Amino acid sequence: MSQFQIPVAVLGATGSVGQRFVSLLENHPWFKVVALAASDRSAGQKYSQAAHWVLDTPMPAYARDMVVVPASTETVDAKIVFSALHTEVANELEPQFAKAGAAVCSNASSYRRGADVPLLLPEVNADHIRLIERQRENKNWRGCIVANPNCTSTGMTVALHVLHQAFGVKKVFATSLQALSGAGYPGVSSLDIMDNVIPNVANGGEEEKVEWEPRKMLGKLNDGKIELADIQFSVHANRVGVIDGHTVCVSAALNQPVEPQTAIEALRDYAAPPSARELPSSPRPVIEVKDEADRPQPRLDRLTGNGMTTVVGRVRKDPIFDLKFVVLSHNTIRGAAGASIYNAELLTNEGLL
Amino acid sequence: MSQFQIPVAVLGATGSVGQRFVSLLENHPWFKVVALAASDRSAGQKYSQAAHWVLDTPMPAYARDMVVVPASTETVDAKIVFSALHTEVANELEPQFAKAGAAVCSNASSYRRGADVPLLLPEVNADHIRLIERQRENKNWRGCIVANPNCTSTGMTVALHVLHQAFGVKKVFATSLQALSGAGYPGVSSLDIMDNVIPNVANGGEEEKVEWEPRKMLGKLNDGKIELADIQFSVHANRVGVIDGHTVCVSAALNQPVEPQTAIEALRDYAAPPSARELPSSPRPVIEVKDEADRPQPRLDRLTGNGMTTVVGRVRKDPIFDLKFVVLSHNTIRGAAGASIYNAELLTNEGLL
Amino acid sequence: MSQFQIPVAVLGATGSVGQRFVSLLENHPWFKVVALAASDRSAGQKYSQAAHWVLDTPMPAYARDMVVVPASTETVDAKIVFSALHTEVANELEPQFAKAGAAVCSNASSYRRGADVPLLLPEVNADHIRLIERQRENKNWRGCIVANPNCTSTGMTVALHVLHQAFGVKKVFATSLQALSGAGYPGVSSLDIMDNVIPNVANGGEEEKVEWEPRKMLGKLNDGKIELADIQFSVHANRVGVIDGHTVCVSAALNQPVEPQTAIEALRDYAAPPSARELPSSPRPVIEVKDEADRPQPRLDRLTGNGMTTVVGRVRKDPIFDLKFVVLSHNTIRGAAGASIYNAELLTNEGLL
Amino acid sequence: MSQFQIPVAVLGATGSVGQRFVSLLENHPWFKVVALAASDRSAGQKYSQAAHWVLDTPMPAYARDMVVVPASTETVDAKIVFSALHTEVANELEPQFAKAGAAVCSNASSYRRGADVPLLLPEVNADHIRLIERQRENKNWRGCIVANPNCTSTGMTVALHVLHQAFGVKKVFATSLQALSGAGYPGVSSLDIMDNVIPNVANGGEEEKVEWEPRKMLGKLNDGKIELADIQFSVHANRVGVIDGHTVCVSAALNQPVEPQTAIEALRDYAAPPSARELPSSPRPVIEVKDEADRPQPRLDRLTGNGMTTVVGRVRKDPIFDLKFVVLSHNTIRGAAGASIYNAELLTNEGLL
Repeated sequence: MSQFQIPVAVLGATGSVGQRFVSLLENHPWFKVVALAASDRSAGQKYSQAAHWVLDTPMPAYARDMVVVPASTETVDAKIVFSALHTEVANELEPQFAKAGAAVCSNASSYRRGADVPLLLPEVNADHIRLIERQRENKNWRGCIVANPNCTSTGMTVALHVLHQAFGVKKVFATSLQALSGAGYPGVSSLDIMDNVIPNVANGGEEEKVEWEPRKMLGKLNDGKIELADIQFSVHANRVGVIDGHTVCVSAALNQPVEPQTAIEALRDYAAPPSARELPSSPRPVIEVKDEADRPQPRLDRLTGNGMTTVVGRVRKDPIFDLKFVVLSHNTIRGAAGASIYNAELLTNEGLL
Repeated sequence: MSQFQIPVAVLGATGSVGQRFVSLLENHPWFKVVALAASDRSAGQKYSQAAHWVLDTPMPAYARDMVVVPASTETVDAKIVFSALHTEVANELEPQFAKAGAAVCSNASSYRRGADVPLLLPEVNADHIRLIERQRENKNWRGCIVANPNCTSTGMTVALHVLHQAFGVKKVFATSLQALSGAGYPGVSSLDIMDNVIPNVANGGEEEKVEWEPRKMLGKLNDGKIELADIQFSVHANRVGVIDGHTVCVSAALNQPVEPQTAIEALRDYAAPPSARELPSSPRPVIEVKDEADRPQPRLDRLTGNGMTTVVGRVRKDPIFDLKFVVLSHNTIRGAAGASIYNAELLTNEGLL
Repeated sequence: MSQFQIPVAVLGATGSVGQRFVSLLENHPWFKVVALAASDRSAGQKYSQAAHWVLDTPMPAYARDMVVVPASTETVDAKIVFSALHTEVANELEPQFAKAGAAVCSNASSYRRGADVPLLLPEVNADHIRLIERQRENKNWRGCIVANPNCTSTGMTVALHVLHQAFGVKKVFATSLQALSGAGYPGVSSLDIMDNVIPNVANGGEEEKVEWEPRKMLGKLNDGKIELADIQFSVHANRVGVIDGHTVCVSAALNQPVEPQTAIEALRDYAAPPSARELPSSPRPVIEVKDEADRPQPRLDRLTGNGMTTVVGRVRKDPIFDLKFVVLSHNTIRGAAGASIYNAELLTNEGLL
Repeated sequence: MSQFQIPVAVLGATGSVGQRFVSLLENHPWFKVVALAASDRSAGQKYSQAAHWVLDTPMPAYARDMVVVPASTETVDAKIVFSALHTEVANELEPQFAKAGAAVCSNASSYRRGADVPLLLPEVNADHIRLIERQRENKNWRGCIVANPNCTSTGMTVALHVLHQAFGVKKVFATSLQALSGAGYPGVSSLDIMDNVIPNVANGGEEEKVEWEPRKMLGKLNDGKIELADIQFSVHANRVGVIDGHTVCVSAALNQPVEPQTAIEALRDYAAPPSARELPSSPRPVIEVKDEADRPQPRLDRLTGNGMTTVVGRVRKDPIFDLKFVVLSHNTIRGAAGASIYNAELLTNEGLL
């Protein structure tokens, strides 16, 4: 099978992350969308009828007339399955697809903590992809499940990875200002967020994810097991009136004092692992460090590197820990649909489909 | 002079904090506004013409036809002078008024760090008011200058004071989500904040203030000197699309581990010092602790206790330090105009005019 | 029964209009809330648990611990029943309550077009209240149904009534910019309205209501029948990112040319009919005309007269018709819950309970 | 001189419309920016320092290091001069540039009413370009001034032109919901527009422009003179919390009744005049008619056809006039910078430089 004809499907295609998948897969050089699957309520309708489109780019022409199918291994036949399913549905369906031979690249949180499931940011821990060999042995699957992290973990982990490699990270305080699209559609009521801030996301569950996931991604793969990175996290999650783009304020304690300028250079110079560098969705650059004192800002910077770049700013000394900085990452591109696609590209390139 | 006829003036009366003064002083039981002063550009006009009113309560009738005067000791004769002046102007004018015999209750940052200037939150450090005796000696003034803190320091300091008294506070990480009215009028351009967040306030100067001011307010007055509290602060300041109400996410290291419920009880039970308890602007209650998992929220909670109450929520264990919580405080009432008025009431009641 | 103890109930008490009822009925001088009714899902819970409170004033203490009951004549026993029910439920329940003897003051659109149902704005057509005599005859009810108009019809009709009385109105073009609270809770998704406008409300149904309802309210009651006013309406309805307060841009053709200043005076001088003038919820003033060129504005003017006043501005010549102006009205107070309460007060005062 | 090297300059390059010029001219196939001019305050600085960038696309690389020059014929030497100047400055400078030989393509309102100045939307009245022959005779200029209309006139005029050609337009009521970027930067204060609407733009001046400009553009060029179209306009202008994209609700009286579907087909089938059809900035399509009942919406539709397409929706019967519809147009692209560039392309292609 040529790379240029790899058939892919999107599960949960009508939701807000599903729409990002549909949008980002338009004109993808390797993947061809052969199925858009959603709940039974939508199945049977044309995609243009089933989806209440919320992106500011038009619905791709290829998708408009595709008939939405139910999300099941009987109705969806694809080499790669992108999952934008809700957790409970993903819990059940993703293993079925993996068993049936599909590479499931999932945005759901269901299997992120699985000991044999790679939690993957290719520019950070591309080597963790090898975990699926263990996964296939354990589960006796022909396919596999690869997870991408929570949208708030994403940008922060990319930046922390560079600092961890270079200087060692010990403790992290992080406060997020998260965008509305992270809650899906219809998600947050306008009456709850106009002239307002909600100092909680997912009833606290978000904070636990963001306190744990980076430890797995920054961990070491040894003998088929991930050893969690020994870093402590404390996270405050907030919802703010921004459409796309999660901003995170970070204070980090390092193994050694570091001048901000040294950290900035490390962040700017960082290159993804070779296997993750030249993929269609590779962020270019991986990290952009802004010089302006009031950046990054979500509206102005979220589309840097087509929404795949992690944007960092205000790198400065922290009065208690070592460094303070701000990280911005596009939550439905780098933090969700783009993440799963990038993961799928890595799988493809590594011959792991 | 009866308390009920104390003549007061507002300097910088046309700006957004000035408007709050004008609004809060309507029907004040003790104070009577005798002068509204502003820049030369506004002087000579009726207040209703000079001020571009931005509050959602109507301009008080008493103020509409008052003629704005220039801000100088020659044109303003009042026992108490409320200052909403810009720093540079306040630097110069406030001492002149103090020398001329007025009690200057200032919202400007000019003299907050003055060794003999009380930086005052009556419900926290009412005893610091005694510092003005030293001030009068030093400066040979009949009047005095009393400062209230930065709007972001305010709510956080009230909450930390209770924890500091009860358990001892050692270190604090704080991330603010600050309202637009804190930048004055016209302040933040709509193009800068719609669908956006600005991860910086006052080009970083805000953070330094909020890292220092609480140490003075939580410090001890000994022999006419304030000994700064030995607490380390690290602050990230952000501007968000909220009209009024600063939200601050706080992580605090204490001298001893404390159960969240114990902290909540301490916060709820807190009463202001006796001298600050029964003043017209005393917050009732001083602190409200919300039980709901998604509160406090600025739009819903900022007017608690007429905007003078500090609202706390999400008190929980911190994975690195001891406690995490969220504090909300109305930035132009408790954090600015209401603060100065409350200070003036304390001065009046203590016989220090 | 003393006026001061009239037992009232709110149907649909947990929704956004229901919350306004609960809030406005706190400390009402005549009415006492004896039941809060909602869907079966909420029934049995305390109101403070059942309602996701969205108002920026706190939930009244009286309501917090009331147990929500199902909305039925068996569970609700009150002299006056305020209905914030959805249309389909109101269709069925409101007649049952009227039959059982309650005065149903309804915010639902169900019976607004009923030939024997008063569509009532007391400051405009208090005399239409007599229609319930015919209604009681027709239906053999001891109680009655009285409707208040759509929130967008409301302010516009108040202003047009004055012009119609004074100069005769023939044709009206009106374009609304409607607030989010008009769609209820959760109502409009934040993703649909941030940085956006939706040029349609209720899929066009709103426009038809606003093109018809004013004709009934401005019509004449003759011999137990309403003769619709002979005015043509063309309405464009839009949803904008405003929490409360509907703004309507109006162009009106009159029977005769009128100087804007003459119209302004007529609007300012207008007094409600005597029977509607001294009720607890009577707007004071009925109409406020702003002189500033950029008013009314929803955030600044919606609470004029406790949210019951109709605010008019920019009265000027229309290049095609005769007059152009802007009308603002608080959509959940004057345009919904406050409207029903005002109607109930009129019923009470007229001895029609 | 090859088309591919035509030197162009931007006057007023640092403002929000100036930034759009700078952005749209990146990689323009015919034009090469040789000068960025602004006020004396900015002159001498690099563009990246002088401009507070507010677009969500990055500042083009070509512009970052260009040194801003003062706006004068001595410092700017270009064949085409794009003017984003304020009216008063444009009044004075534009004729100087025209005299010096430049084709001034202006977004300012200064000369829109000039009897010999084309007010140009190429897809509507490309033939009006011939007016510059008369202009050159009258003024003895080697260059010329060509104006594009007010951003609110733009989309409405494109749609009305099609209806006027096909059915004849007699009267138009139009209510605008205008975006913030139309007021420039810093423009509208966030405190004025959050949770709000301002029912006035430019203190009423906007309405007069929009009531007059379409008459010139829809007029006939006869013997070197424009005969204004005999159409009456009544306009209400409003500012809403939208970043880009002006929405206009239109009711139009035609010479004959027309079925909405017939009008929709005329709008969809419309093609620009041949000379305006194949230019680099030609809108493709000229008009898009949306079928969805809640479109167009600024956030979702403003970038249709790279922001040059006029988007129409909700075409339906008007109860008083003949047709009602909604028009959306990107105010800083089709309505400002893109408009001037499109005009310049027409001039170039017609050999009128």
